[in-house]
Amino acid sequence: MVLKPLPVRFANILKEIDLLPDKLLSTPSVQLVKSWYIQSLMELVEFHQKSPDDQKVLHDFIDTLIRVRNRHHDVVPTMAQGVIEYKDTFKVDPVTNQNIQYFLDRFYMSRISTRMLMNQHALLFDDNASSGHPRHIGSIDPCCDVVEVVNDAFESSKMLCDQYYLTSPELKLTQVNGKFPGKPINIVYVPSHLFHMLFELFKNSMRATVEFQENSPSLSPVEVTVVLGHEDLAIKISDRGGGVPVRKIEQLFSYMYSTAPRPRMDDARQTPLAGFGYGLPISRLYAKYFQGDLNLYSICGYGTDAVIYLKALSTDSVEKLPVFNKSAYKHYQATSEADDWCVPSKDPKNLSRQSAAL
Amino acid sequence: MVLKPLPVRFANILKEIDLLPDKLLSTPSVQLVKSWYIQSLMELVEFHQKSPDDQKVLHDFIDTLIRVRNRHHDVVPTMAQGVIEYKDTFKVDPVTNQNIQYFLDRFYMSRISTRMLMNQHALLFDDNASSGHPRHIGSIDPCCDVVEVVNDAFESSKMLCDQYYLTSPELKLTQVNGKFPGKPINIVYVPSHLFHMLFELFKNSMRATVEFQENSPSLSPVEVTVVLGHEDLAIKISDRGGGVPVRKIEQLFSYMYSTAPRPRMDDARQTPLAGFGYGLPISRLYAKYFQGDLNLYSICGYGTDAVIYLKALSTDSVEKLPVFNKSAYKHYQATSEADDWCVPSKDPKNLSRQSAAL
Repeated sequence: MVLKPLPVRFANILKEIDLLPDKLLSTPSVQLVKSWYIQSLMELVEFHQKSPDDQKVLHDFIDTLIRVRNRHHDVVPTMAQGVIEYKDTFKVDPVTNQNIQYFLDRFYMSRISTRMLMNQHALLFDDNASSGHPRHIGSIDPCCDVVEVVNDAFESSKMLCDQYYLTSPELKLTQVNGKFPGKPINIVYVPSHLFHMLFELFKNSMRATVEFQENSPSLSPVEVTVVLGHEDLAIKISDRGGGVPVRKIEQLFSYMYSTAPRPRMDDARQTPLAGFGYGLPISRLYAKYFQGDLNLYSICGYGTDAVIYLKALSTDSVEKLPVFNKSAYKHYQATSEADDWCVPSKDPKNLSRQSAAL
Repeated sequence: MVLKPLPVRFANILKEIDLLPDKLLSTPSVQLVKSWYIQSLMELVEFHQKSPDDQKVLHDFIDTLIRVRNRHHDVVPTMAQGVIEYKDTFKVDPVTNQNIQYFLDRFYMSRISTRMLMNQHALLFDDNASSGHPRHIGSIDPCCDVVEVVNDAFESSKMLCDQYYLTSPELKLTQVNGKFPGKPINIVYVPSHLFHMLFELFKNSMRATVEFQENSPSLSPVEVTVVLGHEDLAIKISDRGGGVPVRKIEQLFSYMYSTAPRPRMDDARQTPLAGFGYGLPISRLYAKYFQGDLNLYSICGYGTDAVIYLKALSTDSVEKLPVFNKSAYKHYQATSEADDWCVPSKDPKNLSRQSAAL
């Protein structure tokens, strides 16, 4: 049954939470998140003793799943709040930043996977659940029309952009089906995941374009190229929004250095199209979840290209999950080390004393 | 004096050579390379006792430098030959691959830096050396015209491409000077390094375009965008040469998995525009040498974008050098570790046995 791994994944990530730096672990927000996981794990483990053939048990199980899912609804902003509490009190150093990046990538990926499991189970086994599209298998569309999702996400972003800036760039779409030339591009995928990534990237591109070109008579379009190759499905989004220096690209994916999303009650204060926040790192996790990736290549003074890579073959689209083992444990023990590359001024002093002449 | 660091760099890299896996270190080719470094180090160290004010000493020193430079001429293909000897005898495993990648990136970077030092000294102090361009300071052009180097490298590559394929794609160039709009784009740089990178990328793009579009009535141009921003100088080269799967991008930069360049005597047998080989990883080192970078983003079934990033400000363009310290030492001790990310089938067995029912 699809839910065998759920308590395993909860238990695994609980072990990793305890490896976080003490000062972060002890924040009220992180303690709250931890208590949710403990509570949910206990509720789920109870079912291990019960018979799966009993209809009453199955119904109770679905109720529990829905309760767990609701309990965990605010995990992302609450964890983000914990990071803010940490940052407000302590200095951020590169080692802690690296630890937190490592942990949160794994933690949020684990969450994507457990939500996927819970949604699939609820959609497939709960008679009361809204059925969604008849073609879909749970949240998976075996014939996901990529260009349709691109258009949906673009329109949704455009609406926000128009509301806020009273203008928005157009879409210029190119599609190349390298496997079946001229045919629409379909893959087996979770449309909501794809929408999430595209919406995030479009918001960023639109905001950058409107702000960078505010003195231009017209806005450059956002160019989207969708290509289905034999191995990869790639979606490239190119804007002329001025780009960012290459030095800052990594920061855009950093949980620690980015503007973290505030908990829900603060939503009203957020700028529409606020961009960044946790949007980019979490979008990248969605891409990686089924063995894809999401990369940004920016040219400072010009614009940004973002590329989403997904696996073209459903046989390659297997879940990517964090596993808690010795290798993972070691990551949390990393300490600050001397750089193994340097600029000349950092050369060890005793070596440069060899000769005063030559 | 500019040459103080030279014996230091030779001594440092000699220490790292000794940390290579025994089976590689003991190949005749690697032993030969090592003997060159030992010989050169001894010849250079001799000058530490001599007076730099003596004209005879200075002349002898320049002679020694030229002799050292000539001795080290074939370091890249000879080291590559050592890797081939290793591969012919032993199985390549990921840990060895990683070790060799780590070492050769540092080794060739050290070589770029020592050649730069030797060239600078010879050009600046040897009255017999051909003076080069009057504006240049040694091999550095304080006012390097980037578009001129782009055109030169494109023409050189086009000539090879025409010779071999009897056709070649055109250049479509866009330049944006974000610092001084409308003005030519100039930076302080070593034109020969920039030429090296561009020539390599153009050869790859041309070959890919001609081969991928062999049935087209006309060839798509290679599009080049040169942008000077406030921090970065970026050169993007886009081709429609069909691209490569994202899975293979890393391999293109691998010394171990790429087609290594054969020693000089075999040159005649090489295909023109053979591409890859060590061209890409070494071009990336040239970019990194002055704190830049070189990245490839390919879309399988469509084409490839390559971006060279250089520092726009000469104050940022400082040498990036390997330093031999404990951190570096530890890299060579890396052993094969369990993956901390996995697909579900790799889940530890004892964890998935918890429940047969749910």
